[in-house]
Amino acid sequence: MSTPAQRPDRRVSRTRRLLREALTSLILEKGYDAVTIEDITRRADLGRTTFYLHYRDKEHLFLESIEQSADELARQIVQIPAETLFNENGEGAGLPIALVFEHAAQNADLYRAMLRSEGSIKATSRLRELTIQYALEFTRRWWERRGLTSEPHIPLEVIAQFFAASLLGTLVWWLEAGMPYPPRQMAAFFRRLVLDGLRSVTESH
Amino acid sequence: MSTPAQRPDRRVSRTRRLLREALTSLILEKGYDAVTIEDITRRADLGRTTFYLHYRDKEHLFLESIEQSADELARQIVQIPAETLFNENGEGAGLPIALVFEHAAQNADLYRAMLRSEGSIKATSRLRELTIQYALEFTRRWWERRGLTSEPHIPLEVIAQFFAASLLGTLVWWLEAGMPYPPRQMAAFFRRLVLDGLRSVTESH
Repeated sequence: MSTPAQRPDRRVSRTRRLLREALTSLILEKGYDAVTIEDITRRADLGRTTFYLHYRDKEHLFLESIEQSADELARQIVQIPAETLFNENGEGAGLPIALVFEHAAQNADLYRAMLRSEGSIKATSRLRELTIQYALEFTRRWWERRGLTSEPHIPLEVIAQFFAASLLGTLVWWLEAGMPYPPRQMAAFFRRLVLDGLRSVTESH
Repeated sequence: MSTPAQRPDRRVSRTRRLLREALTSLILEKGYDAVTIEDITRRADLGRTTFYLHYRDKEHLFLESIEQSADELARQIVQIPAETLFNENGEGAGLPIALVFEHAAQNADLYRAMLRSEGSIKATSRLRELTIQYALEFTRRWWERRGLTSEPHIPLEVIAQFFAASLLGTLVWWLEAGMPYPPRQMAAFFRRLVLDGLRSVTESH
């Protein structure tokens, strides 16, 4: 049920979504650097003035698209109950990993656009920042949940950096290679590698 | 003992080394984009003509510095006997990892210069390419050495991508953070994480 007060918000979010979608499809067609504001507004069927009511420039719109997409994923992960996430056998840690790969598959256009555009160094580093931040928080909570009060043999920051780098790098390769394995399978591969390590891969054979 | 035939080669390699060193120190001072050929030749105390006898442009010199440094590391790794590298308990796999971190520490200026320069996207992707190529070869040889003829449950390309991403990402963070742990210790952390996985870090506590 919509109240009159909700309507303008909804119109705003619709306009922004149209602009984000227009930018994403245009980047894939001609590359980030070549896309103009005019291209975007023409594709979105909106006026130039409307664009500047919402965004400063192309980069602002692009960064918002990335943030929006990352926020959506974070909201999904936050909904997993802590008891599930940090359960005894470590299986729960597989859930956010699965969500990450599913999310990347659903937003593959946007992320591929980001990876291909040389002009989007800011967006790439923002995504790296977000991943590291999340990995650090996750690692800390996981450690505390296990009731381990002393510092681990390996510093938590090293664990978080390792986790973030391996996740982001594996994800980027998978997207760039055209997703050669389904998201669920990639998540299972990654979970196995990151939780049990390379040694487990040969030993269980 | 030097023969007359060796001397010109030696002079060439000395000139090139001076130019590489000049570029590296200048990048750290003012950033890749701001460095001019004149800056480089002035710092190296060589003529502009000499520069163009050896390199097309600044990027050419920079890419050669990266390649040269990576080659040097590859030569060290190749010298490890196969029996040591691929021994039963997997300890041998730790040797190239230790070499990588020691090498990065010795060449920290160059690598940090590379990471900081926005103009050096080519160098960064070249280094990523080299790491992936090496990881794939290493993973294949390791698999064959273990006499495992059937494909692993996890495709070798996924293993190699995971390995390369986690190594490069952890290394980059460590360099950017000013090497907060000594190279040997970082190598030991990384080896543990990549071979035995995150689960082993809590379990052994």
